[in-house]
Amino acid sequence: MNVVDLNCDIGEGFGPYRIGNDAELMNFVTSVNIACGFHGGDPRIMRETVQLALEKNIGIGAHPGLPDLNGFGRREMNISPQEAYDLVIYQIGALDGFVRSEGGKLQHVKPHGALYNMAAKNGAIAKAIAEAVYKIEPELILFGLSGSELIGAGQKIGLRTGREVFADRTYCEDGSLTPRSEANSLIHDAAEAVKQVTRMVTEGTVKSIQGVDIEIKAETICLHGDGHQAVFFAKRVVEGLTLAGINLKSAGHFL
Amino acid sequence: MNVVDLNCDIGEGFGPYRIGNDAELMNFVTSVNIACGFHGGDPRIMRETVQLALEKNIGIGAHPGLPDLNGFGRREMNISPQEAYDLVIYQIGALDGFVRSEGGKLQHVKPHGALYNMAAKNGAIAKAIAEAVYKIEPELILFGLSGSELIGAGQKIGLRTGREVFADRTYCEDGSLTPRSEANSLIHDAAEAVKQVTRMVTEGTVKSIQGVDIEIKAETICLHGDGHQAVFFAKRVVEGLTLAGINLKSAGHFL
Amino acid sequence: MNVVDLNCDIGEGFGPYRIGNDAELMNFVTSVNIACGFHGGDPRIMRETVQLALEKNIGIGAHPGLPDLNGFGRREMNISPQEAYDLVIYQIGALDGFVRSEGGKLQHVKPHGALYNMAAKNGAIAKAIAEAVYKIEPELILFGLSGSELIGAGQKIGLRTGREVFADRTYCEDGSLTPRSEANSLIHDAAEAVKQVTRMVTEGTVKSIQGVDIEIKAETICLHGDGHQAVFFAKRVVEGLTLAGINLKSAGHFL
Amino acid sequence: MNVVDLNCDIGEGFGPYRIGNDAELMNFVTSVNIACGFHGGDPRIMRETVQLALEKNIGIGAHPGLPDLNGFGRREMNISPQEAYDLVIYQIGALDGFVRSEGGKLQHVKPHGALYNMAAKNGAIAKAIAEAVYKIEPELILFGLSGSELIGAGQKIGLRTGREVFADRTYCEDGSLTPRSEANSLIHDAAEAVKQVTRMVTEGTVKSIQGVDIEIKAETICLHGDGHQAVFFAKRVVEGLTLAGINLKSAGHFL
Repeated sequence: MNVVDLNCDIGEGFGPYRIGNDAELMNFVTSVNIACGFHGGDPRIMRETVQLALEKNIGIGAHPGLPDLNGFGRREMNISPQEAYDLVIYQIGALDGFVRSEGGKLQHVKPHGALYNMAAKNGAIAKAIAEAVYKIEPELILFGLSGSELIGAGQKIGLRTGREVFADRTYCEDGSLTPRSEANSLIHDAAEAVKQVTRMVTEGTVKSIQGVDIEIKAETICLHGDGHQAVFFAKRVVEGLTLAGINLKSAGHFL
Repeated sequence: MNVVDLNCDIGEGFGPYRIGNDAELMNFVTSVNIACGFHGGDPRIMRETVQLALEKNIGIGAHPGLPDLNGFGRREMNISPQEAYDLVIYQIGALDGFVRSEGGKLQHVKPHGALYNMAAKNGAIAKAIAEAVYKIEPELILFGLSGSELIGAGQKIGLRTGREVFADRTYCEDGSLTPRSEANSLIHDAAEAVKQVTRMVTEGTVKSIQGVDIEIKAETICLHGDGHQAVFFAKRVVEGLTLAGINLKSAGHFL
Repeated sequence: MNVVDLNCDIGEGFGPYRIGNDAELMNFVTSVNIACGFHGGDPRIMRETVQLALEKNIGIGAHPGLPDLNGFGRREMNISPQEAYDLVIYQIGALDGFVRSEGGKLQHVKPHGALYNMAAKNGAIAKAIAEAVYKIEPELILFGLSGSELIGAGQKIGLRTGREVFADRTYCEDGSLTPRSEANSLIHDAAEAVKQVTRMVTEGTVKSIQGVDIEIKAETICLHGDGHQAVFFAKRVVEGLTLAGINLKSAGHFL
Repeated sequence: MNVVDLNCDIGEGFGPYRIGNDAELMNFVTSVNIACGFHGGDPRIMRETVQLALEKNIGIGAHPGLPDLNGFGRREMNISPQEAYDLVIYQIGALDGFVRSEGGKLQHVKPHGALYNMAAKNGAIAKAIAEAVYKIEPELILFGLSGSELIGAGQKIGLRTGREVFADRTYCEDGSLTPRSEANSLIHDAAEAVKQVTRMVTEGTVKSIQGVDIEIKAETICLHGDGHQAVFFAKRVVEGLTLAGINLKSAGHFL
């Protein structure tokens, strides 16, 4: 029987600022990636988000980003692998402080934004991040783009990995995501997104924008938490996957 | 036989900046308080300082401060107890990330600067900090000014506490430190400092600036890490205490 | 004929975060206080807000705050007068960079949040801020709480001042604002707020919560920019003042 | 008669941290580039450095950097031209606040670190920076690497430019600096540095590491302010240039 995890970035506000409807979204996902204060998030929001996730019994992940609050961690920075290692340890540790003090257990780590993209393509950065995760706690699951350097680095060091796919992004025939700068990078129609994601989970296949089917392994699906449609979209994806007989479970239960 | 811990604030640089001679000072102290990135310190410096402390087999403590890098955590801020709780959890967690990933174990927590002073006098802040330390790990030792609200709050919640005294500061007859704004707040003569601190450890007594002997419990002695004389001063204190037959040990070994 | 300025805090978002409906509010006020990056605001938002204010021909003010982005500048910090001076110069300069490069002219300065409150009561802080404003540009108008130390310090150094009153806050009989911690600190009814503010402008009087009328000078009225009701409230105040025959003009035109 | 400006990065400390010996170095240079708080520098240091430069009658420049205090502005970030424009306006404005309030006049702008390098090669970033400088004050001089995109962009928009050369860096035959990662990127011998820089000023020529003479225009020479040798090195360069009959003047006096 098919099973998949449904994750979402969350807790990305800061001080008086809030982004997305975290509490509502948590009714649909099985895992959350909680911002750790570098690209978004702050101590109060981290605690409150951890408490909410524990109440709802959702898998908790650290979502470390580049030290660029003003750019929301979306601008690539020329950091060294050692710098990537250090900032990932710091952020996982900080979030884990809240998880432990609330009696929970950290399930996974997923890099954010530009760090996620760098870790997908840059082997040295991927290795540094995998090492950081492994050294702080070898039981953690490392989430990364399906087919990326990060997944490879995680497997090599001995971590469990969660191969991530996107419900609302299109793919190129080499397996990479169509860059956001391209017109057809996003899938706006919920039905189409549900169809794509169902096929990825059940058949391990996705149709690229070039029209060719490519293989893709889907263990966790990323839902976007911002935008007016986020909750509606999440609901549709959950319904679609359930209808297709796919089991939705936190990554820690099957990876 | 008398025993005491000797601690020092360390790892308080940031980015390209360095303060004090950390490596040298670690040859004299038995415990270090490592800055956690809010008032000083950054991920790289935290990792390097943890590695150095583990090599030298010194007790490692988290040294959380107010979120005021520009003011080095020395300016009081009107934060709520909940805010104090949250920022202490965050910083302990972050430092513990490096300690765990290097195979070590965190020994204690000591608030920094203005947060230390606030926790000495303000019962609600003291309680929030003690709670944070207890909830993240009840085995941790809480360092605070001997006789302070923080020590009281730590004992009440069930933490081991380390009552801290200062070698180079003078005391008022109510047991508080003479404010730095006063002319006679500092002891500049190493011999006098050694004498004061030896008496505090062996007799549990210190002569206040009013000339009256007061009781004081000394379980850990703070040495200042900055200033040209820091290493010289540290050396003299170690020699003096040893000559007086006092055993120097990390707090974790006897508290 | 009576005349008054209507001001509002604006541009207080950061990075991907937004607060309030700046563009809409600017249709009602005659002056805006633009955040300068310390408690809120960033270079992009500052430029965009300046451009919008210039389009709408509104008086532009700098709104310097404490260096506490996470606390939105609302937590008092124990800064020295020299530190207050320095951070006010820095922030006015930064905002003025955008104003000048867009071909405009800065009209006024109004401290934000905790800095505003500190400047109302603390003479040394008030003097430092007045000095900063005067030294960077003696033609600037200094906005402060009507009857405050800040207004006094501004007048003493030779600045034009804008005595500020609040439409939706109640007053104590000593002329101070009822602390937000009190139940009756806010006026929720728009009609009542309009009545209070009209009376302050036309009669120079306000009824304190103790029931006694006190004198108050109203040269500029603060409207709050956040909250769901902000635009509705602003509209009602403008209508009410206009009906009462009060002229609404930017402070620079009559102070 | 030959004339050249001698500049140095300065005021790059932060909070309790200091870098270099600013006061001493100012005895040798004719212009200073003052950090503006993003990669280093803070309001207090900016004011103190401006005051010192005015006392010594040295040309004052803004030294805007990337928003990366922890990386000292040395890590390239993938910012857009608009973001470069905005952060340059902000930082020039902030520094100019101190210059104006102390009765001085800003002479020039020189981007720092990674922003300097990006502006040398990336035409769109160069254009954005030149535009920012021009719009805030068209009388400002724009400093950039001799032969760079930044100098071209400055000239095109109508700014005066200061073509910068380095005393202690070697050059490739295409006119670029030998990357710091190369073994022979630095000239450690003061005599050799003086010889290179004298030749650049008097003959407009430098010998590349490939052994070929290339043309180079030298209007301002950068001295490094950090390192133990900084003051010694500065002294030697001043002596060497003076002996060669070269006049040392602030850029504003001859560009």
